[in-house]
Amino acid sequence: MLATRREFLKWTRQGILAIGLFTLLAAPTTLAQSDPLPSWNDTAPKQAIVSFVEKVTRQGSPEFVAEPERIAVFDNDGTLWVEHPMYTQLAFALDRVKTLAPQHPEWQTVQPFKAALDGDMKTLAASGEKGLLEIIMVTHAGMTTDEFQKVVTDWLATARDPKFKRPYTELVYQPMVELLAYLRANGFKTFIVSGGGVEFMRPWTEKAYGVPPEQVVGSSIKTEFKMQDDTPTLRRLPEVNFIDDKAGKPVGINEEIGRRPIAAFGNSDGDLEMLQWTTMAGAPARLGMLVHHTDAEREYAYDRNTDFGRLDKALDAAAITGWTVIDMKADWKQIFKD
Amino acid sequence: MLATRREFLKWTRQGILAIGLFTLLAAPTTLAQSDPLPSWNDTAPKQAIVSFVEKVTRQGSPEFVAEPERIAVFDNDGTLWVEHPMYTQLAFALDRVKTLAPQHPEWQTVQPFKAALDGDMKTLAASGEKGLLEIIMVTHAGMTTDEFQKVVTDWLATARDPKFKRPYTELVYQPMVELLAYLRANGFKTFIVSGGGVEFMRPWTEKAYGVPPEQVVGSSIKTEFKMQDDTPTLRRLPEVNFIDDKAGKPVGINEEIGRRPIAAFGNSDGDLEMLQWTTMAGAPARLGMLVHHTDAEREYAYDRNTDFGRLDKALDAAAITGWTVIDMKADWKQIFKD
Repeated sequence: MLATRREFLKWTRQGILAIGLFTLLAAPTTLAQSDPLPSWNDTAPKQAIVSFVEKVTRQGSPEFVAEPERIAVFDNDGTLWVEHPMYTQLAFALDRVKTLAPQHPEWQTVQPFKAALDGDMKTLAASGEKGLLEIIMVTHAGMTTDEFQKVVTDWLATARDPKFKRPYTELVYQPMVELLAYLRANGFKTFIVSGGGVEFMRPWTEKAYGVPPEQVVGSSIKTEFKMQDDTPTLRRLPEVNFIDDKAGKPVGINEEIGRRPIAAFGNSDGDLEMLQWTTMAGAPARLGMLVHHTDAEREYAYDRNTDFGRLDKALDAAAITGWTVIDMKADWKQIFKD
Repeated sequence: MLATRREFLKWTRQGILAIGLFTLLAAPTTLAQSDPLPSWNDTAPKQAIVSFVEKVTRQGSPEFVAEPERIAVFDNDGTLWVEHPMYTQLAFALDRVKTLAPQHPEWQTVQPFKAALDGDMKTLAASGEKGLLEIIMVTHAGMTTDEFQKVVTDWLATARDPKFKRPYTELVYQPMVELLAYLRANGFKTFIVSGGGVEFMRPWTEKAYGVPPEQVVGSSIKTEFKMQDDTPTLRRLPEVNFIDDKAGKPVGINEEIGRRPIAAFGNSDGDLEMLQWTTMAGAPARLGMLVHHTDAEREYAYDRNTDFGRLDKALDAAAITGWTVIDMKADWKQIFKD
């Protein structure tokens, strides 16, 4: 009982008042407000979503899917929130280098740390994956999991996006937040499956998306359990554990969810294999969608040529496999919550 | 709404009729039937469970825990189902060696396969961890995840426990099944955290325990994603990915659940660190319990001297840390469902 009441309150908070009992109570004049996807224009993607949900939830429909099998997976960066001018986690890491710099005087001269401190993105990019990994490890490892959670939470409370001058957690796409809630209201369990660090996401995904920590799959570094003076601790080690990107996404889904999703939402080539795994099983109804960043005015416009969220192969694949491409400019009435 | 109706039907099926609305509707004479833990004697462990649940669910109680944080973790072998005379997964592997033997004539002479075929447990044990790993790899890897799921499901449908002559999935402990349902009825999310293979458990845990695949954490081998003739496949590789045992359990919990549990149930030294991680956080109410196999007549009696489910260090720790030890013989009215 409680679960539902809580869910209900959550929907209410999000202004999606018309699900369940409310539709029965509402006067006809308020029915226009009952659209569960108000930030979507009435174009093909919205129609594809609603039609898919109706098909899989209608008892007796040949495409009916039992509730426990209604698993939907969402990429995070560029699919649920902004990923330009750089991944938010990278902005976090660079800020963190600055915060830690006084304890590391050698960083003033040693690369890639000097570049990070100088904001010299060109040199930083030239340091390649190895350089980036060095930055990630000094900023993400060497503390307990509890300590890291606090560092992330504190940073998000004060950091501001350079373009929108808003907290990063406010730069989540309102249409996608509505979509997550709409799916859950129809018996779906919603998961995040992201190349981002799982412990970077978990402190805030429940509040921002309604996705609890146990439904977040991501990349991770190794951790080690130890009893320290009768206190159990998990320490974060500077060693990669799992990269939840590209062909790693189906692996992560299988490992942590253990069911094949029936709907997958992404925005880049990193999501190609996740969409393949989800939609190409030969089963009746599957939904694959890609967010295409086409709105330079309200957000950003990029696809085949970008360092963050390149959409190239997956865009070609969409045309062949029948995935729906969301044109942000044309299909979204609103990008962010006001 | 649907989730609750489904949950409700599930409780009803399990005979736990008195939760929620039913208690209000039921006549006083039926109240005696409303005990959610009928297979437990009214001894200390049952009282500890009920008192814990009442504390963490009572609004305004200093030990109140919000619903999303009500995470309970359960070991599987020896905690939720029988683990003697050997882990069920090992029985599966040995049967599987026999099934595959015609394709491997060399196994008739090469160890540890010869021992497996002969049922020579002594030689098998002497082959050590290396030998066991060889057996696990030839029986658990080299096929797709879908194929492995079918192999497990088919085996469980026909295999019978040597002592009880019943399917293994009927040898789940009825008191623990009731406990799982009781916790869920009180807003807990129940997880399995087992040293057993995650893909060996997932095909049947939902039916046996009401624990869906996405709430099962276990050991795993590596998998690889590939497109084969336009069909996405996950292939199981003969390489260990993660051992979810001992100090690995808190690591697995953190990696896949991402919250610290408030209740943990185990039965062996493999669960020691999981119980430490759960209960020694300094937070108000935490529950740690160990199933102690004390009933040679109705099940088995073993603790400090056994190859499967040794309970030694954790038993000593229980006395110090205040974990409740369940004495199967004294505390359980019934072991299995009739």
